[in-house]
Amino acid sequence: MGAVLCRRQAGAAEAILEDVEMARPAATAPRDLLVRIEAASLNPIDRKRRAARPLLDPTGAVLGWSAVGVVEETGTGVRRFVPGQRIWYAGASERPGSFAEFQLVDERIAGRAPTGLAAEQAAAMPLAGLTAAEALYDHLSIDRAGPGHVILINGGGGAVASLAVQLARRNPAVEIIATAGSPQSREWLLHVGADHVVGHRICLWQQVRQLGCPAPRSIISMYTNKRSWESYIAMLQPFGHICLADHPGTLDIGAARAKSLTLHWQAMFTRPAHLGEASCRQGELLAELARLCDERAITPFPVRPAAPLSAASVAAAMDQQQNGGPRPVFVPQSRMN
Amino acid sequence: MGAVLCRRQAGAAEAILEDVEMARPAATAPRDLLVRIEAASLNPIDRKRRAARPLLDPTGAVLGWSAVGVVEETGTGVRRFVPGQRIWYAGASERPGSFAEFQLVDERIAGRAPTGLAAEQAAAMPLAGLTAAEALYDHLSIDRAGPGHVILINGGGGAVASLAVQLARRNPAVEIIATAGSPQSREWLLHVGADHVVGHRICLWQQVRQLGCPAPRSIISMYTNKRSWESYIAMLQPFGHICLADHPGTLDIGAARAKSLTLHWQAMFTRPAHLGEASCRQGELLAELARLCDERAITPFPVRPAAPLSAASVAAAMDQQQNGGPRPVFVPQSRMN
Repeated sequence: MGAVLCRRQAGAAEAILEDVEMARPAATAPRDLLVRIEAASLNPIDRKRRAARPLLDPTGAVLGWSAVGVVEETGTGVRRFVPGQRIWYAGASERPGSFAEFQLVDERIAGRAPTGLAAEQAAAMPLAGLTAAEALYDHLSIDRAGPGHVILINGGGGAVASLAVQLARRNPAVEIIATAGSPQSREWLLHVGADHVVGHRICLWQQVRQLGCPAPRSIISMYTNKRSWESYIAMLQPFGHICLADHPGTLDIGAARAKSLTLHWQAMFTRPAHLGEASCRQGELLAELARLCDERAITPFPVRPAAPLSAASVAAAMDQQQNGGPRPVFVPQSRMN
Repeated sequence: MGAVLCRRQAGAAEAILEDVEMARPAATAPRDLLVRIEAASLNPIDRKRRAARPLLDPTGAVLGWSAVGVVEETGTGVRRFVPGQRIWYAGASERPGSFAEFQLVDERIAGRAPTGLAAEQAAAMPLAGLTAAEALYDHLSIDRAGPGHVILINGGGGAVASLAVQLARRNPAVEIIATAGSPQSREWLLHVGADHVVGHRICLWQQVRQLGCPAPRSIISMYTNKRSWESYIAMLQPFGHICLADHPGTLDIGAARAKSLTLHWQAMFTRPAHLGEASCRQGELLAELARLCDERAITPFPVRPAAPLSAASVAAAMDQQQNGGPRPVFVPQSRMN
């Protein structure tokens, strides 16, 4: 099968992407699904992994962690899917990714795909949607929040923020403040359900205070640095919650003690890395996202026109990648023909 | 009224405690109760505050944050208590403490005292009991935990751990691991409801693994340092919770990301410092603790024979203070006579 391999050659400064032909994998693990990939999206993690692995295996790695495809084969212990079903998933960071014609994924971290979305649109959602859903439901219990619960989603109009605003909006009691870095993001976030939009990074707590709503009880942060951290602590109610959906460095966590705050780490790859029956939660969240898409209860994040999957197209998309813009999506060439 | 004042004299190396006569306070704030103190207990915070405030106001501060007494006067806005009622409370760290004959406390952070406990026993409970109850209920939601939920209480047999074990035990689905530093603590913790007791600080995660129960989902930590922190992260289930009830310094919190862990800060003085209607939660928890004492559903933490309140007795008790031993309690001399 065709695949795009990310590989560090001896002496090279940066990992290269190359088009390769490799053996089609087989569903030999009991809970594995072999998936014929329809489309896969580029996410910030791909560029980070290309840049951040100086000791990358010389045999290379297939990147890509957000895809939609059709089940081709099933392992002997698979209970939830049969061949021919269309599924979507983010996958596991330790296993080969979706920039290939076929991929193996454990059934516990896959969900049925929406029927009403084009493959290109669907492929952009699993990683960002799981991040938003796990943050909102598994960490912040936003579905059980009552009146007066204000949540700040500091995501600058990116894919996670876009979906987090829409999922939080499903609880009408919650008041949503989002952040935007551009007028376009601002309009989009208001369109998908934010009650207020504030500037991206400047004096966050002062802007929030000026809105006149109650102090936030919950925050989802995709931009955690010293400055935003201090703003979070200043603005939150006592016993409030901060969910970190990015990967910040050192934080002065002791500053959160005086208000008895709670700090949640949200890493989408946790459940894939610790497979057990609890990992089915990820499959269930994906099935719920599919249902919401089919009911048009959530609007998918905008994507660029799909490009044929190749080392050149992935590399070009990585070079152009920006936070907040339409998401690049790739379709295996066998499917473009 | 008589009181014990903690005061730093110019040039002195350590704050001194002295017996003083000061004006009896009056309930001029609307929600204040003036309390005639029956007994007050010594807690670790008293020694810390004596040691850690080099810029202590030269007018001095009254320490003591765990007391029982009788309402003597009420502010104009008090709704929950009337003069003559017996109450217990921890109080607010910014206001004068309980080492005096009278004290003011906001009604929202006070609860009715148990009727079946001697004043000396009752005085030992509010600060430790609130810490345990807020950690278990407000942070870890242990009352809603189902079968298979294992909690580790790393408290070495201290007052908080003693009460946390008993409150957690009220949910029969929860499996409780406690830590002890001595055979006496071990016996006591098993007596009050722990399922397992492990050694205090040595290779915590290995000891827990050897118990053969499921991996813990929740931890309450009164001994958070580099070593225990690493053990917590190694032993917890993905999406597990750590509640810090002490005041640790720097922690490598990024290590908690791969498992999507949640970190709760528990500071008992948060609600007193941010008074609002939400602070009534502390009064409600104290009323619930009183009910459990009266039903003999919890066993009070052991106390030393009560000493008459004086600078000398408080200073002597501070010098002898140990973690895990019976709690020193003081009774105003006017009440001893």
